[in-house]
Amino acid sequence: MKKFTTVSDVENLQEIIKKALEIKANPLSETEKGKGKTIGLVFLNSSLRTRLSSQIAAQNLGLNVLTLNAAQEAWNLEFADGAVMNGDTVEHIKDAIEVLNQYCDIIAVRCFAGMKGKEDDVNESILSQFEKHAKVPVISLESATRHPLQSLADCITITENWKKDHKPKVVLTWAPHIKPIAHAVGNSFAEWMQEMDVELVIANPEGYDLDPAFTKDTKVIHDQDEALKDADFVYVKNWSSFDDYAAMPEVKGDWMLTNEKLANTNSAKVMHCLPVRRNVELSDEVMDGENSIIYQQAKNRIFSAQAVFSEILLSLSRF
Amino acid sequence: MKKFTTVSDVENLQEIIKKALEIKANPLSETEKGKGKTIGLVFLNSSLRTRLSSQIAAQNLGLNVLTLNAAQEAWNLEFADGAVMNGDTVEHIKDAIEVLNQYCDIIAVRCFAGMKGKEDDVNESILSQFEKHAKVPVISLESATRHPLQSLADCITITENWKKDHKPKVVLTWAPHIKPIAHAVGNSFAEWMQEMDVELVIANPEGYDLDPAFTKDTKVIHDQDEALKDADFVYVKNWSSFDDYAAMPEVKGDWMLTNEKLANTNSAKVMHCLPVRRNVELSDEVMDGENSIIYQQAKNRIFSAQAVFSEILLSLSRF
Amino acid sequence: MKKFTTVSDVENLQEIIKKALEIKANPLSETEKGKGKTIGLVFLNSSLRTRLSSQIAAQNLGLNVLTLNAAQEAWNLEFADGAVMNGDTVEHIKDAIEVLNQYCDIIAVRCFAGMKGKEDDVNESILSQFEKHAKVPVISLESATRHPLQSLADCITITENWKKDHKPKVVLTWAPHIKPIAHAVGNSFAEWMQEMDVELVIANPEGYDLDPAFTKDTKVIHDQDEALKDADFVYVKNWSSFDDYAAMPEVKGDWMLTNEKLANTNSAKVMHCLPVRRNVELSDEVMDGENSIIYQQAKNRIFSAQAVFSEILLSLSRF
Repeated sequence: MKKFTTVSDVENLQEIIKKALEIKANPLSETEKGKGKTIGLVFLNSSLRTRLSSQIAAQNLGLNVLTLNAAQEAWNLEFADGAVMNGDTVEHIKDAIEVLNQYCDIIAVRCFAGMKGKEDDVNESILSQFEKHAKVPVISLESATRHPLQSLADCITITENWKKDHKPKVVLTWAPHIKPIAHAVGNSFAEWMQEMDVELVIANPEGYDLDPAFTKDTKVIHDQDEALKDADFVYVKNWSSFDDYAAMPEVKGDWMLTNEKLANTNSAKVMHCLPVRRNVELSDEVMDGENSIIYQQAKNRIFSAQAVFSEILLSLSRF
Repeated sequence: MKKFTTVSDVENLQEIIKKALEIKANPLSETEKGKGKTIGLVFLNSSLRTRLSSQIAAQNLGLNVLTLNAAQEAWNLEFADGAVMNGDTVEHIKDAIEVLNQYCDIIAVRCFAGMKGKEDDVNESILSQFEKHAKVPVISLESATRHPLQSLADCITITENWKKDHKPKVVLTWAPHIKPIAHAVGNSFAEWMQEMDVELVIANPEGYDLDPAFTKDTKVIHDQDEALKDADFVYVKNWSSFDDYAAMPEVKGDWMLTNEKLANTNSAKVMHCLPVRRNVELSDEVMDGENSIIYQQAKNRIFSAQAVFSEILLSLSRF
Repeated sequence: MKKFTTVSDVENLQEIIKKALEIKANPLSETEKGKGKTIGLVFLNSSLRTRLSSQIAAQNLGLNVLTLNAAQEAWNLEFADGAVMNGDTVEHIKDAIEVLNQYCDIIAVRCFAGMKGKEDDVNESILSQFEKHAKVPVISLESATRHPLQSLADCITITENWKKDHKPKVVLTWAPHIKPIAHAVGNSFAEWMQEMDVELVIANPEGYDLDPAFTKDTKVIHDQDEALKDADFVYVKNWSSFDDYAAMPEVKGDWMLTNEKLANTNSAKVMHCLPVRRNVELSDEVMDGENSIIYQQAKNRIFSAQAVFSEILLSLSRF
């Protein structure tokens, strides 16, 4: 694996899930693999799980870890090519990346959608600069349109929780929020589930359909109750409008996931990437209930990251 | 030791002081003890000594260290149970703690008093959430009402500086400040000194008596000169009113510790937890004078932390 | 080497350049040298290259690294001796330093010029406190008047890029900027080049002469075209007025380095310490052109730091 920014970077999804579960059973089995190598974890946005799980994964592999909170610790970045930098920005992103090339064997970066222009976000205005200028493998710690380490952790978690012979029904359901939220987790979950042996259904209010480039042939239903029927897994996540980019069109009905709604499912396991707004996206009773596998998902972030870092290290040693 | 948030978590105070002094003599004697284990250091507030000494102590034990500046690096936390999170808060503290459970073998947390409501602070509104939800040992890096790693360092420092046969007279004296300060260091020092073989006296202006739950039978004197007489150790610290919570009632006389006041003591050693406001709490001449053992106290923060982490690791290996 | 804040701390410049190049060829040759020792990296200002390269250098030497973003993570510092600390400052710099003495074997500090008072900056109001109060070796990560780790990296880079028998002509040229910038890089480059076997020329507009204490006998030319003629290396850097301290007197002509201006040189290699304001200090075509050795300079920051840390460790082991 030479980079990791989308599911298409994974050659064999079942293999990497298997590897992640082996790592989970024995996290310290490759403590020499990263010796003498350095991973840079660059955060352009807030992070709890990604920050800590990536550090643990890297430490488990013996990697040196450099963590950079770019905005607070370094310089205000310019993103526009050809900019005359006579304003507030102090360093061009491409120069920062070229310097990271000199210092790191792997560059991992978190760069959220700006939510200001559809084109900028769809085109991954920041991640694309890393993909263009990095001379070492790039790993996404969540970008404008995708959150692949989360999605891999989701695949691991579903695999751990499904031992039956038939395909599980997996419902990705929109949830309420108070402000415009990016599409990365929703897009990414759709994209990865399409590679899994599951029946995926997406439920969201009218006006909230995700980018069809991600949903593809997945069934999208605007009636949450209908979608949840017989679900084996329910993935809860908010996102804003994609069509009317970052808008929050009025929503009919109550989309917060509650025990009452869960009763309509096949005793579905409940998933969420966190952080979650309790009693807005889902109720306390669901969050704290026995159907929640949300903290297990969080734990699997370690093994998702470690499996990816381990594969990337393998590609490094080939050169 | 299964947690460390108050003196009552210490089974044998003299034993842990002895252990800390052994560690001080040989800090790298247990570099394998924490191998493969992870301590999360979570800071909800500023820290210099606690931050650095905890990192050193953890490194000396071979622990992996995750440091999280929660407010700046992660998400704005909600503390109210049952909250409908439709405001500024993005993640509930109990979800953050459950995630830390997945990532850490030990959770250490700094969470100052909010100084806005007596009940919230007395009930340790934040630390109590960690004690309730953590499934791994919790260590206080200072909480609303206590600063036990500081107090243990204070015990170590007094032990190092007292070789006589009789009990030393230890005076905890209030000092001036410009804004309302929490009671944690004062409370905690009182609580720990009551377990030491010393004669403890507390001096503070009227209106500034500490919570009697901490001072208990300790003599409280409102005349600083009288209290300081024949003191062997003087611990300088400001705190605001406890009765009229966080108020700063008018103070008669000058309570700043000076050489003139020190002359009244038994050539007392001067202590302070730092940071200190020079020429407000104590004079430059005292701070820089030969009676000050304040930097020695700061150094002993390493061995206080290392002794505690070492004991906690012992309890982990029992499971 | 007992400290590293100016070129005069280096006993033999050619020797340390040679050592740095050996380290570059084999960065992991001394991984045990720093074992059990701790370096504190204290940042009072932003940093990308210095932060990361220092961490890598320290890790390569097996040192424990403590990184402190002083303003954001610790306490608001007081710098005035004798201050009555009844204002916004919470901890005196000398107390912070005394605590670092207790925790670190080496203290490295970044403390930019305040650009508010000439005297404060010329006298190194912050670094001088470290030099006065530190009881362990002090390393400058850039101070008010100097940036020696950058200058050493510059010497390494020039050495790598000059294999001819005669002295290269090295031109330090002023470049435009939008706000008053400190003199540290310019001063320091002058100071170090005077110790190298090069012909140094400084080009800057009238009113922008650097402090003569640094430029000494170096030729200063106010005509950029004349200065650039036949240059082998061009070092681009802005600084504000030194005479009329921190002012930005009007500049005649265009001083931004372009390919057109570069055509006037001996196909000069272009250098800059970064961060650079593209299309203000130099054009995109220069920055991205084949004459730029700017990223190589950035990489050499690792080996500059590692050579210095390694020398400092040697002095520690002598005591």
